[in-house]
Amino acid sequence: MAYTRITAAEAAALIKNDDNIGMSGFTPAGTAKAVTRELAKKAEAEHTAGRPFQVGIFTGASTGQSTDGVMSIAQAIKYRAPYTTNGDFRKSVNAGEIAYNDLHLSHMAQELRYGFYGDIDWAIIEVCDIEEVGDKIRCYLTAAGGISPTVVRLAKKGVILELNSFHNPNAKFIHDVYEPLDPPYRKPIPIENVGDRIGTPYIEFDASRLTGVVECNLPDEARAFKDSDPITDQIGNNVAEFLIADMNRGIIPPTFLPLQSGVGSTANAILGALAQNKQVPDFNVYTEVIQDSVVDMLLTGRVKDASACSLTVSNECLMQIYDNMDYCRKHLTLRQSEISNSPEVIRRLGVIAINTAIEVDLYGNANSTHISGTKMMNGIGGSGDFERNAFLSIFTCPSTAKNGMISSIVPFCSHLDHTEHDVNIIATEQGVADLRGKSPYERAQAIIENCAHPDYKQLLWDYLKIAKMGQTRHNLPAAFAMHDTLARKGDMHLTDYAEYVK
Amino acid sequence: MAYTRITAAEAAALIKNDDNIGMSGFTPAGTAKAVTRELAKKAEAEHTAGRPFQVGIFTGASTGQSTDGVMSIAQAIKYRAPYTTNGDFRKSVNAGEIAYNDLHLSHMAQELRYGFYGDIDWAIIEVCDIEEVGDKIRCYLTAAGGISPTVVRLAKKGVILELNSFHNPNAKFIHDVYEPLDPPYRKPIPIENVGDRIGTPYIEFDASRLTGVVECNLPDEARAFKDSDPITDQIGNNVAEFLIADMNRGIIPPTFLPLQSGVGSTANAILGALAQNKQVPDFNVYTEVIQDSVVDMLLTGRVKDASACSLTVSNECLMQIYDNMDYCRKHLTLRQSEISNSPEVIRRLGVIAINTAIEVDLYGNANSTHISGTKMMNGIGGSGDFERNAFLSIFTCPSTAKNGMISSIVPFCSHLDHTEHDVNIIATEQGVADLRGKSPYERAQAIIENCAHPDYKQLLWDYLKIAKMGQTRHNLPAAFAMHDTLARKGDMHLTDYAEYVK
Repeated sequence: MAYTRITAAEAAALIKNDDNIGMSGFTPAGTAKAVTRELAKKAEAEHTAGRPFQVGIFTGASTGQSTDGVMSIAQAIKYRAPYTTNGDFRKSVNAGEIAYNDLHLSHMAQELRYGFYGDIDWAIIEVCDIEEVGDKIRCYLTAAGGISPTVVRLAKKGVILELNSFHNPNAKFIHDVYEPLDPPYRKPIPIENVGDRIGTPYIEFDASRLTGVVECNLPDEARAFKDSDPITDQIGNNVAEFLIADMNRGIIPPTFLPLQSGVGSTANAILGALAQNKQVPDFNVYTEVIQDSVVDMLLTGRVKDASACSLTVSNECLMQIYDNMDYCRKHLTLRQSEISNSPEVIRRLGVIAINTAIEVDLYGNANSTHISGTKMMNGIGGSGDFERNAFLSIFTCPSTAKNGMISSIVPFCSHLDHTEHDVNIIATEQGVADLRGKSPYERAQAIIENCAHPDYKQLLWDYLKIAKMGQTRHNLPAAFAMHDTLARKGDMHLTDYAEYVK
Repeated sequence: MAYTRITAAEAAALIKNDDNIGMSGFTPAGTAKAVTRELAKKAEAEHTAGRPFQVGIFTGASTGQSTDGVMSIAQAIKYRAPYTTNGDFRKSVNAGEIAYNDLHLSHMAQELRYGFYGDIDWAIIEVCDIEEVGDKIRCYLTAAGGISPTVVRLAKKGVILELNSFHNPNAKFIHDVYEPLDPPYRKPIPIENVGDRIGTPYIEFDASRLTGVVECNLPDEARAFKDSDPITDQIGNNVAEFLIADMNRGIIPPTFLPLQSGVGSTANAILGALAQNKQVPDFNVYTEVIQDSVVDMLLTGRVKDASACSLTVSNECLMQIYDNMDYCRKHLTLRQSEISNSPEVIRRLGVIAINTAIEVDLYGNANSTHISGTKMMNGIGGSGDFERNAFLSIFTCPSTAKNGMISSIVPFCSHLDHTEHDVNIIATEQGVADLRGKSPYERAQAIIENCAHPDYKQLLWDYLKIAKMGQTRHNLPAAFAMHDTLARKGDMHLTDYAEYVK
């Protein structure tokens, strides 16, 4: 190959203070890792020398420790969008040190193209293979679709490729690279089935724009998820039973519908419970993140076709995919985040969306992002893309947190990411509240009865007693009494509304 | 014509307590009016006789006095979705007397088909013409697309047509009737341009399902909108200038993009200001409700093509359309609400969405529905469908209400319909806050500086001073201090956070 090889440090040396960087990846999967570690070192050196050095970072979703982690520690991030899950980043952002813009993931690529964030200076893309075709480079993505074609096209100063030999070049066979045109020229996204492919396996760009290739061998940094526990298992069973009942009464078609399930142990528990039930036919998955459990089901045929933006799986699982590529290339497709999370496609396919909430309120609003209204946990991710457009919109959470000191059902969410208009079903380990067709007061009754922990039911009924009549019943000065009591006394059980009511 | 004529009273006599009725119309435009008046009378008679009589009503959006009005007064409505604007209905719903489910308008038809609301017993459809073709009836809608084809197809007990001779049969030429298939069979909605037609001009159904035709001559009940005033004019100018600046710096394409603008005097002021500016090329409108001002611009060619769900216009304006049908049929299209408000189409076309909010908060969340968190005003309508999927998402409101006693900019919205993830721009008569790319704290600064009334700026800055650090800064017990002070003292100016902070 005739391309220019450079080291990660040489690549980092090219990047200037205040530059905006667009990166491959979606979750730690497929994210650039080599240059970012050198960028963190550069930032530390620059800061030691008394010079400013911070950059803006745009990716498909979160990244791993080699990006958001080391760069947060090095205070190298000025601006970040659209999502992160990193603990070091979280500390910085909640201390007000990073400007973080928490976006619907389907919005990121198009808003970059629309020019809402200024110029993208650099694209840093992890690839598993590179070809030169005339004066073009064709590069092949690894474990995620992300926003890569967009940032490659937009990067004004150049494209840096991390050719990571940890990934098998066969990874190319699961990618369907597609970037829509922008208005007024956009066309329908022609996906009608979960497995439809509409693009190319590669990203192509002018070879003159390639700054250099950084060769590396770095494992993916996918997170380990907690094993399921009795609570998440019970939530999984509750959701599975509910969906089966809805299928049996003819709401969900007998062929079932594609599933989207968030990340983590609850998601695994739900999928596991569905897969184990013989009434549920083999099903499809149209989601943003595929975890190990879906890969297992895909390889056994229980999941027929799976489409996602990333393989957020253990490295063992990733190797299993690469080793079974003849099968996987027919049944597994990775897409760009604006396609995996496209409202158009999600609504057309009739996806059943299941995501976890931090808290939900009596009227069916959900908080996906903030602890007690102020501290960012991760971000909204794709939950809004999926839930708003789903055939069935489901949120799950354990009914309590912190050994019962926190009720996840509250009078008023301390931060709202999903409104009452967007939530059909709430499930906890206690049971399921079906909010479809219900007025706000009927929803409150269903949520307290079916989802709240017994310890908190009376406190929630008491709130309704002091609430003013209206379409939505509230007592505003007492709306956050449970949150404030937690902050002051460490336990929501101790809430006394009388302290708040004026 | 061989169809059965019945009177409105005869039709009403067929409808039983607890029946669910699906109706034509979207806003008062095109809504059934004759049978509903008789239903109200029947309810009163039944109630006088000590018998229960209440029905569920499903329409495209709001209706007029002859439906929500008289039926609310008669306590004839048990359940209502997805939207209303009627004052009598509002009183009932805020007194807890009607179960009202406030939905995204794009969700109504598909959720009826999915079976979320049980059976639809009757369809009552206002039509301008009827044809019999073999054993089929073809009926032609009047001033709105609504959910009519869906409720005609679903109605288990029968279809009642109100053949309203107030409407010119030529109204048929502006309709494009299209009902998508449901998952897993749904296909792309093939609209690529505002004026594209993809369906038929009529709704067709088996003649055996026609219960009868009620002949009537009743004017449409479109609301009169307040004339613009200096405040709405200034908001209009601010938005127009902002959009022109965004076009001049290359964000909005030079061809401009289709506009969606809510209902009312601010919407008219914005469209007027844009139309008067010579830098803005002739533009398209892709919206849910067309008002008189758009029709004026359409007839002069300033608006090239307009697509909507309803003609919510004065009756004079409606007659002007009917009188200019040769021109209007080429440039004006009425669609079903799930198409006019389709996330798929709105995102594809790159619609610029402009809607009014009741209040917005420091972080860019918007309340479209509730006064002080409890009293329903109208409903979310299509604002969520458009704003979430818009190329540019704009909310407008006067900076104050009630002679300045209320600030429309508050620390925390008392009800949230649109989250921080869905709002790009906030405009008041004071100015415009561009929230794109901004972190929550940067948004708060921009909103206070640019949008808040000078009387309230200090109060809002003071809130940030007492707010806890985090991604989103709040002091939860004081978050609704302004609202509670208004409730207790009649004036948000008198807010003293010290009364609330624990």
